[in-house]
Amino acid sequence: MKITAFAGGVGGAKFAHGLAQILPPEDLTVIVNTGDDFEHLGLFISPDLDTVCYTLAELANPETGWGRMDETWNTISNIEKLGGPAWFRLGDKDFGTHIERTRRLKEGKTLSQVTQEFCEAWGIKPKVLPMSNAPVRTMVNTDEGELEFQEYFVHRHCEPVVKSFRFDGAEIAEAAPGVIEALEAADAVIFCPSNPWVSIDPILKVVKTITKPVVAISPIIGGKTVKGPAAKMFRELGIEPSAFAVAKHYRNILSGFVLDNEDLNLEKSISQLNIKTLATDTLMKQPTDRARLANDVLHFIRSLQ
Amino acid sequence: MKITAFAGGVGGAKFAHGLAQILPPEDLTVIVNTGDDFEHLGLFISPDLDTVCYTLAELANPETGWGRMDETWNTISNIEKLGGPAWFRLGDKDFGTHIERTRRLKEGKTLSQVTQEFCEAWGIKPKVLPMSNAPVRTMVNTDEGELEFQEYFVHRHCEPVVKSFRFDGAEIAEAAPGVIEALEAADAVIFCPSNPWVSIDPILKVVKTITKPVVAISPIIGGKTVKGPAAKMFRELGIEPSAFAVAKHYRNILSGFVLDNEDLNLEKSISQLNIKTLATDTLMKQPTDRARLANDVLHFIRSLQ
Repeated sequence: MKITAFAGGVGGAKFAHGLAQILPPEDLTVIVNTGDDFEHLGLFISPDLDTVCYTLAELANPETGWGRMDETWNTISNIEKLGGPAWFRLGDKDFGTHIERTRRLKEGKTLSQVTQEFCEAWGIKPKVLPMSNAPVRTMVNTDEGELEFQEYFVHRHCEPVVKSFRFDGAEIAEAAPGVIEALEAADAVIFCPSNPWVSIDPILKVVKTITKPVVAISPIIGGKTVKGPAAKMFRELGIEPSAFAVAKHYRNILSGFVLDNEDLNLEKSISQLNIKTLATDTLMKQPTDRARLANDVLHFIRSLQ
Repeated sequence: MKITAFAGGVGGAKFAHGLAQILPPEDLTVIVNTGDDFEHLGLFISPDLDTVCYTLAELANPETGWGRMDETWNTISNIEKLGGPAWFRLGDKDFGTHIERTRRLKEGKTLSQVTQEFCEAWGIKPKVLPMSNAPVRTMVNTDEGELEFQEYFVHRHCEPVVKSFRFDGAEIAEAAPGVIEALEAADAVIFCPSNPWVSIDPILKVVKTITKPVVAISPIIGGKTVKGPAAKMFRELGIEPSAFAVAKHYRNILSGFVLDNEDLNLEKSISQLNIKTLATDTLMKQPTDRARLANDVLHFIRSLQ
């Protein structure tokens, strides 16, 4: 069974790692949100691509889910000492990734090419693709005006109240090479448990149509997000955050929806949206939870066919 | 007594640190070679400026004399793992300096301004000035053709045989703000024990004339350089490397010359160049040697007046 998965950062990366443990590498393509990408300290930073790659390569920091394992912080500390901008906490190993990516992009390579080269260097077997090589920038319209995503997310700790999102450049951005092909070759498309508003929606804006069955995994369990601001965003947009709200958000494109056992009470109302459901343990606390959940989801997808 | 010192990397930095321990900060200006500067990995790197500043701030690696104390190497290791250029071994703390310098230069600041800001952040009291804000690039003409300085020095480990040097841009480069003023205000100018060919000569090319008494300290002891390729360069240029050869190199501008006790036998021939001499222990093994040598040199300068 060929799977194309859409992923944002930590939750998406963990689930993609689960899929990678089960599927033969040639049957898995992970399409990663680049709406969070930004230029900072003169470097091109692709947070979700890095989180997905570090996780697939088993180089990720197990505590945070992002950044590198056994990381040191001497570069950013020296920048801070010099009075430079240090609010985006990049580790020393991580800086190597951004410096080398920036160098290759400035040489004229595309983000796809650089990502492929990095995957080879890190021994990542499944295909990892940025959603686009063209800049798409998630802009957060808040009660304090429109903010760039990282300004909102990291610098302002998601404090400003969200009113809407805009994916600057998405209308004209072409999907990166291989993205449309992967969607056409897939037996099913999985939306990893990533933020619907700022991780999955930007990818959808770029790919525009999906003709294959789509299954989404809820990033919201018991009304809360495991990580990140998805629940807060739902609330500020006037929607009670829940697995049901996530399913409803995607209702026009979903064949199936995976929710946590904790949210069993929502199964019926999701079914009424004409979406098949699977309730299981969706929380990926331990690395072994990733493959177990991926296995559950793949079985669920087979049952839909 | 107001001193303006010309310095390259390690030897120059150590002696400048000696001067800084004795002179009131307002009486010392260190003018630093920027001919070794280069752009690498998208970053503006000023090796001699950094070595001088790290040494004056007592942040330098005591083993190597360059780079930072208690350094880590995770950024460059990750770049290497990714297949990027890793021959110029930059440490993690050091990367912070280059990233922040590059950011400020791209904002439109001059190298002088950035250097002043970094000196303030690191608590460096004497004035440290780049020789110029305009690019001057030391080019090494070798038996393998002309090489950029760092290509020759670091990448090729000074292996190609030197035929001559060229300071690209030096003819049109203006001295950085404060350089000419510091030379005019000085009671004497000191050439630190730095490489005559590639550390002091580029500064001389830019400042063009010195009207004040000049004293040089030999970077060559017993026919050998303490560090770096100066002796090898003399030899390849057909000159027997020695303290005498250094004095002769500067003969038209020197009032006094400081040589090591080991080279006492050369004192007479240096005197015959109409240059006053001081023989003392010039090797700066221990940090305390720096102030001792600086003190000796300052006494010598007073004796010349």
